[in-house]
Amino acid sequence: MPNISEKGVRMPASPIRKLTPYADKAKEEGKTVYHLNIGQPDIKTPEGMLRAVRNIDFDVWAYTPSEGTLAYRSKLTEYYNRQGYHIAPEDILVTAGGSEALTIAMHACINEGDEVIVPEPFYANYNAFACMSNAVVRPIPSSIDNGFALPPISEFEKLINERTRAILICSPNNPTGYLYSRAEMEALKELCLKYDLFLMADEAYREFCYGGGEFVSPLHLEGLDQHAIIFDTVSKRYSACGARLGCMVTKNKAVIQSALKFAQARLSPGMVEQIAGIAAVDTPDSYFEAVNKEYTLRRNTLVSRLNAMEGVYCPNPGGAFYVMAKLPIDDADKFCQWILEHFTYDNSTVMLAPGTGFYSVEDLGRNQVRMAYVLNVNDLNKAMDCLEIALNQYPGRTLA
Amino acid sequence: MPNISEKGVRMPASPIRKLTPYADKAKEEGKTVYHLNIGQPDIKTPEGMLRAVRNIDFDVWAYTPSEGTLAYRSKLTEYYNRQGYHIAPEDILVTAGGSEALTIAMHACINEGDEVIVPEPFYANYNAFACMSNAVVRPIPSSIDNGFALPPISEFEKLINERTRAILICSPNNPTGYLYSRAEMEALKELCLKYDLFLMADEAYREFCYGGGEFVSPLHLEGLDQHAIIFDTVSKRYSACGARLGCMVTKNKAVIQSALKFAQARLSPGMVEQIAGIAAVDTPDSYFEAVNKEYTLRRNTLVSRLNAMEGVYCPNPGGAFYVMAKLPIDDADKFCQWILEHFTYDNSTVMLAPGTGFYSVEDLGRNQVRMAYVLNVNDLNKAMDCLEIALNQYPGRTLA
Repeated sequence: MPNISEKGVRMPASPIRKLTPYADKAKEEGKTVYHLNIGQPDIKTPEGMLRAVRNIDFDVWAYTPSEGTLAYRSKLTEYYNRQGYHIAPEDILVTAGGSEALTIAMHACINEGDEVIVPEPFYANYNAFACMSNAVVRPIPSSIDNGFALPPISEFEKLINERTRAILICSPNNPTGYLYSRAEMEALKELCLKYDLFLMADEAYREFCYGGGEFVSPLHLEGLDQHAIIFDTVSKRYSACGARLGCMVTKNKAVIQSALKFAQARLSPGMVEQIAGIAAVDTPDSYFEAVNKEYTLRRNTLVSRLNAMEGVYCPNPGGAFYVMAKLPIDDADKFCQWILEHFTYDNSTVMLAPGTGFYSVEDLGRNQVRMAYVLNVNDLNKAMDCLEIALNQYPGRTLA
Repeated sequence: MPNISEKGVRMPASPIRKLTPYADKAKEEGKTVYHLNIGQPDIKTPEGMLRAVRNIDFDVWAYTPSEGTLAYRSKLTEYYNRQGYHIAPEDILVTAGGSEALTIAMHACINEGDEVIVPEPFYANYNAFACMSNAVVRPIPSSIDNGFALPPISEFEKLINERTRAILICSPNNPTGYLYSRAEMEALKELCLKYDLFLMADEAYREFCYGGGEFVSPLHLEGLDQHAIIFDTVSKRYSACGARLGCMVTKNKAVIQSALKFAQARLSPGMVEQIAGIAAVDTPDSYFEAVNKEYTLRRNTLVSRLNAMEGVYCPNPGGAFYVMAKLPIDDADKFCQWILEHFTYDNSTVMLAPGTGFYSVEDLGRNQVRMAYVLNVNDLNKAMDCLEIALNQYPGRTLA
């Protein structure tokens, strides 16, 4: 029997998958499991998008151009220009979700063995995209103690060498919720210009900024046109994760042309999704206002509940719909399994994502967990009831 | 300004793209361009699939499991078991078209620098998938003179070395239309068992077999379970290219598990497409009967028109909807550009795919073109009128 590839062995598995059998077992036993472990929002997809799907009127479900339809890319420029990006349809490559945009950009821009600096904790699949293109992720730890702010630029400079090709950020951040300030973005810009690095930005959570925080994109920064590459998706913005519709945006023509070759190999993004994507751009502001009001309420609930628990610390994040919290526990992997396997309160329990899955430096995040506030406030409170009681019962508790 | 990657430079561009500006210009000049260059069928997508899209009734367009929904994979087993495959839902990984299935399989199964033997001419994007995973394509020429039958097994054995990992075939074939016989498939099976190689089969055109030819899959062959990996798509079968819905099927558990890690990195296949895919499996036989009758008529028209032209030879293929024809020309790339740029008959011209794009050995296919019979018989005849006259006028004609 032939063997799988070395890359197939090396490829990281989804860290949350390990817990799935325990969650499934808990449900089989009749427990309610509150899922705070994944970024699948419970928010309704805008009716306009769904209506566009229901109203399709073609006879042949045909390929679209590999870069996406001109109709969709033109409509997207409306959206981006409202964000102050000043881009044209030819600066956009439509992809199967943000994931494909990142994968293609890695292939198109990073040489094998070359390095991408990523502040950590970071979205675990960045490791997977890097593995696929043989790029090397160089993490720089950020600290929960200052809310996961950008690490000092001097820390980046220590890592930069002749193999460094890019800095990859995510703001508002998954998993920390941290929103990079304009000053932080300007500092990254100067760094990328100084060392001629790509500044790659995962902007999946652009629309989710709370408390008046200002969202700043690399595409907002003057003089960074040839260095900035952003990744986007309709997944979170319109609660349309299953549409698998994203894009890569850059003013760098060589990058777009290189990326297009990888896009041509997979022929076309989805046709129905692009039709829905056109409708999405016309989603009324009231949709986002209602969603952000709801998320703000959830964030406030979660953060205040967590900080009221003995030995727990949770920074108040400026965006996205995640928090990373420090718990009084020996080991987040063990705790997240234990709470599914051995704990129940009011016939319920909670599924969390262990912090370790978001760090590549060994042992970082061992007392942290990520929570996605994708449940309503009532369920969030019940989940927090579970967590609070569980922390008192957990055998690996580190508080006396 | 940072450079793109070496892989971005090395990555092959779509060979047909080079001609697109000439086709666009011809259209701007008011010419009708008959497109025989791409595999985008004009056949209607089954009404059941489109109805399933129009009838979606969810509120949240959510992720599905990375391997695809159990509902879709279960329904697919119905289809495959009708084909005599005897597979279970856990043998299926749902992907974004056949392209993603091939890309994932290359990553999961082929080491960097290891070799995949492919009879040529072959679908040009196999080079692109190999480039992405650093696999090496080793071509074995098949000959137009015997209709592109499987090259002798001894030719395969000459190429096999310690780096050979797989044989990749496509039957019915793109670009030749050739349908591998049971004897050829059995010979490949013995070869793969002898040298412990994967037998990878692109079965995008499974449903398109004409003249009573029998379709034989690696999954039909006893004792090949651990070596067989097939790639499938709804694109051609249901004329739903823009759905980007495919899958990989294998009984080899290690391969499926390795592939699943790559699938997890991109989170989910499309949700609406899987709903449509379920409906597709219930497409009535009458749909395929009508489609195959139509394609048989087109094939017969095209093959007889081509062979009636002086100096032209076109084998009569057993399946798919392509032919490769030998023309009395100096250079297919030049001819395919010339016919768009400098030729017109009845204010029309024709777009063909140069044969060179399907060969990796230099100079092979220089006098061949691929034609997809994705137009109705009336338009096909008009396209053949153009070709016949053009061959007489072309300055690089090789006949006296």
